[in-house]
Amino acid sequence: MSYGKIFSLIKENNLTNWNLYTKHKFVVDLSNNTLKQKTFLNYLIQDYLFLIQFSKAWSLAIVKSETLDEMKISASTVNGLINFEMDLHVNLCGSYGISKIELENAIEENQNIAYTRYVLEAGYSGDFLDLMAALMPCVFGYGEIGSNNINSKPQNVMFQKWLETYSSSEYQKICFEVSKLIDNAVIYRLGNNFKNTYKWKKMNKIFKTSVLLEIDFWNMAIRLDK
Amino acid sequence: MSYGKIFSLIKENNLTNWNLYTKHKFVVDLSNNTLKQKTFLNYLIQDYLFLIQFSKAWSLAIVKSETLDEMKISASTVNGLINFEMDLHVNLCGSYGISKIELENAIEENQNIAYTRYVLEAGYSGDFLDLMAALMPCVFGYGEIGSNNINSKPQNVMFQKWLETYSSSEYQKICFEVSKLIDNAVIYRLGNNFKNTYKWKKMNKIFKTSVLLEIDFWNMAIRLDK
Amino acid sequence: MSYGKIFSLIKENNLTNWNLYTKHKFVVDLSNNTLKQKTFLNYLIQDYLFLIQFSKAWSLAIVKSETLDEMKISASTVNGLINFEMDLHVNLCGSYGISKIELENAIEENQNIAYTRYVLEAGYSGDFLDLMAALMPCVFGYGEIGSNNINSKPQNVMFQKWLETYSSSEYQKICFEVSKLIDNAVIYRLGNNFKNTYKWKKMNKIFKTSVLLEIDFWNMAIRLDK
Amino acid sequence: MSYGKIFSLIKENNLTNWNLYTKHKFVVDLSNNTLKQKTFLNYLIQDYLFLIQFSKAWSLAIVKSETLDEMKISASTVNGLINFEMDLHVNLCGSYGISKIELENAIEENQNIAYTRYVLEAGYSGDFLDLMAALMPCVFGYGEIGSNNINSKPQNVMFQKWLETYSSSEYQKICFEVSKLIDNAVIYRLGNNFKNTYKWKKMNKIFKTSVLLEIDFWNMAIRLDK
Repeated sequence: MSYGKIFSLIKENNLTNWNLYTKHKFVVDLSNNTLKQKTFLNYLIQDYLFLIQFSKAWSLAIVKSETLDEMKISASTVNGLINFEMDLHVNLCGSYGISKIELENAIEENQNIAYTRYVLEAGYSGDFLDLMAALMPCVFGYGEIGSNNINSKPQNVMFQKWLETYSSSEYQKICFEVSKLIDNAVIYRLGNNFKNTYKWKKMNKIFKTSVLLEIDFWNMAIRLDK
Repeated sequence: MSYGKIFSLIKENNLTNWNLYTKHKFVVDLSNNTLKQKTFLNYLIQDYLFLIQFSKAWSLAIVKSETLDEMKISASTVNGLINFEMDLHVNLCGSYGISKIELENAIEENQNIAYTRYVLEAGYSGDFLDLMAALMPCVFGYGEIGSNNINSKPQNVMFQKWLETYSSSEYQKICFEVSKLIDNAVIYRLGNNFKNTYKWKKMNKIFKTSVLLEIDFWNMAIRLDK
Repeated sequence: MSYGKIFSLIKENNLTNWNLYTKHKFVVDLSNNTLKQKTFLNYLIQDYLFLIQFSKAWSLAIVKSETLDEMKISASTVNGLINFEMDLHVNLCGSYGISKIELENAIEENQNIAYTRYVLEAGYSGDFLDLMAALMPCVFGYGEIGSNNINSKPQNVMFQKWLETYSSSEYQKICFEVSKLIDNAVIYRLGNNFKNTYKWKKMNKIFKTSVLLEIDFWNMAIRLDK
Repeated sequence: MSYGKIFSLIKENNLTNWNLYTKHKFVVDLSNNTLKQKTFLNYLIQDYLFLIQFSKAWSLAIVKSETLDEMKISASTVNGLINFEMDLHVNLCGSYGISKIELENAIEENQNIAYTRYVLEAGYSGDFLDLMAALMPCVFGYGEIGSNNINSKPQNVMFQKWLETYSSSEYQKICFEVSKLIDNAVIYRLGNNFKNTYKWKKMNKIFKTSVLLEIDFWNMAIRLDK
C-alpha cells in the first residue's frame, strides 16, 4: 500500500495528526465491532452529504487542471463519485432503513460544513495543487483505514462491508490513480526541488488543516449519538 | 427537433442573431461543399482548444448544481466530453494530418478566448442558470446545424462526417437531456411565471452575448484562411 | 435600531437561533463583566483571523455585484475593513499584550474555519444574494449585540470598549448602509413578491446555517479557555 | 519610469507585441492629434464598461491575496477605481455629451468582453500571480503610454487631458505601488530563482495573451468609427 511520493512525504510531516485521524476511536471501535450501529448510521447520513460536496470539489479540480491528463483523471473520478458511488450510498443506507428522502432532508452538521467548505474554498481561491492538498487526506485516509483494518473482520456486516469497500482493489486503484496524478502534478509545476518551494509549505499547511477537520468529522459522528 | 420550452422561448427572443449564427456563411459553405478544406481544418484546431474550456464550463455546472439530478446530468456530459469526444476530435484531426502535438501547441485565437472565457466567467460569477444561458447556444446551435443540413450531403467526406456527428441520434439525445435539465432548472428556481423575473431578463442577455460570440467564432474560422 | 425589511423578515423566521446567537453566554458574561479576560483575548485573536476571511468575502461581493451601487457600497466596506478596522484590531490586541506576530501566527480554530469558509464558498458557488444571506448574521448580529448591551457598562474597560465599538454611530451607519444594499438587491432581483421565490427559501437556509455557525464561534471562544 | 523587476523582465520577453500595443495607431494618432474625436468617444464608452470588469478583477485580487500587504494594496486600488476613477470617467464622458444613461446602456464590444473575461477567468481559475500577470499590461501599459507621449501635447483638449491622467504623478504612483506589490509577490512565492519555475513560464504566457487582447481593444476602437 503506497500512495505515491508526495503523499508519503506530506503524511510524514503530519504523522501525529495523521494517526489521530486514521486510528480514531470511531475507526478502532468499528474494527473491534464495539461501535454502536446508531453511531455508524449517523455517520453514513453525514457522509452522504459530504459526498455531494466532495464530488463538487473534484469537479472544481477539472476546472483547475492545467493538462489534459489532469482533466481526464479528475473527470473519471467525478463521474465515478456522482453516477456510481452516490447510488451505492443511497442503496446501502436504504438497506438499513434510511430512506432517500431522509438522506436528502438531512441537515449538514457544522463539522461536516467545516471540512467540505474548507476544501471547496481552498479549490476556488487556490490552484490545482492547493485543491489536491485539501483532497488528499480524505482519498488516501480512507484507503489506509480500509487496508489497515480489513483483517479485523467485525461481526457487524455493515462495518465489515464498509471496510471491504475501502480496501477493495477498485478503491485502491482509485487511490493509485490519484497518487500518480498528484505526483505528476507536483513535479510538473514545482520541479524536483519542490521541497524548497513556498507552494510545498502551503500544501503542507492545507493538508494539516484538512486532517484536523477529518478528525473533527469522526468526533462529530461519535458525539451525534449522545 | 425540439430542445425544450426554455430554449424555444429564448431563441425566439434572439431570432435574428440566432439565424446569423446557425446559417452563417461557414455553415452554408460547408453544406454546399464550397468551404475550403483549409478553413475547416483551421476551425477544427480552434474547436479542439474550445472543447477544453467548454468541458471546464460543464464541470463548473456540477459545482453550481443545486439538485442531485443537475449534478448527474452535468457529470455525464463532462465525462462524455473529456473521455470520449476529445479523443474523437484528436483522431479526426489526426486523419487529416494534424498531429496531437500540433493541436496541443496551437494558440487560441482571440475570438476563441472571447467566447470560452465569457462562458466560464458567467459560470464563476453567476449561478447555474447564468451558466446554462451561456452554454445553450453552443449545445443547441450545433444540434440545429447538424439537423438542418444533414440532407445537403457535401462531397467532402470531412464535411459530411461533421454534419453526421451533430445530427446523430447520440448528439441529439444529449441535446434532449440538456434541454430537460434546463427546463427543469428554470421551473425549479423561477417557477412558472419565470418570464416575469429579473433572472429571465439576465439569461436572455447572456444568451444573446453568447450567440454574438459564436458568430465571431465562425468569422474567425473564415478569416484564419486569409 | 432597524436593519431593513429583509433582515427583519429573515430574522423573524429564525428567531430562536438568532437569540441563541445574540444572547449567547459569551455575550451575557461580557456584559455582566463575568467573562474571563483570557476568554475574551482568545476570542480577539480568532476574530482577527476571521476579519481576514470576512474582508475577502466582502471583496467577492464586489465581483458578484450586478449594479454600480452594489459595487460602490461593497468596495467602501472592503476598504474600511482592510485599511482601518484591521489596524484597529491589531492595536487593540497590542494594548493587551498580543503582538502582531502572535496574531499572524495564530492558528484558525475549526469553528472559525467552518464559518468563514462557509461564507466564502456560498459566495463563490452562489450569487450576490446568497453571499449577502451568509454575511448578514455577522454584520447585523454584532450591531444588535452592541446596541442591546451598551447600557450594561461592564467594569472591564476592554469589554466596555468592545460594546462601544459595535454600538457606535459609525458601526450602526455601516449596518444601515448594508441593510439598504440588501433591501435594494432583493427587490431589484426578486421583485416585491420575493417571499414566494425559491431564492428567498434558499437565502433563509443560508442565513440559518450562518447563524448556527456564529453560535459555534462563541462556543469555541468559551471552550478555548478550558 | 520603471515599474519594477518583474514587469521589466516580462516585457522584455514580449517586446514586439508590447510595442504593437503601446505604440498602436490609436495611441500615435491621439498623440499626433490626428485621431477622430468620434473614435476617442467610442473608446471612452467601452473603457467605462472595461473599468467595471477591471475593478472586479482587482477585487478578486484581494480574495486571492496571501499576505495582509497584498490585501491592503489591492483594496486601496479597488476603492480608488470604484469610488473615484469611475466617477471621473462618468464626468469626463458627460462633459463631451455622453450621458450616464448612455454609458450604462452601452453594449460591450466582443473585443472588450474578450479582454475583461480573460482577466477575470485567469483570476478565478488561477492564483494571485496568474491574476497579476493578466492585469499588468493594462496598469503599466497606460502608465508608459502617458509618460511616453506627454510632451506631444495634442491640440484636442480631450486627448491632452487623457495623456495627462496617465502621466500624472498620481497614476505613476499607483503603477509604482503595483510594481512593488508584484515584485514582492513573485519573490515571496517563487524565490529568487523564479525564472526557472513553471509558474514564471505560465505568467509569461498569460501576459502575452493579455497584451494581444489589449492590441485588439485598440483595433476595436478604430474599427468602431467605420
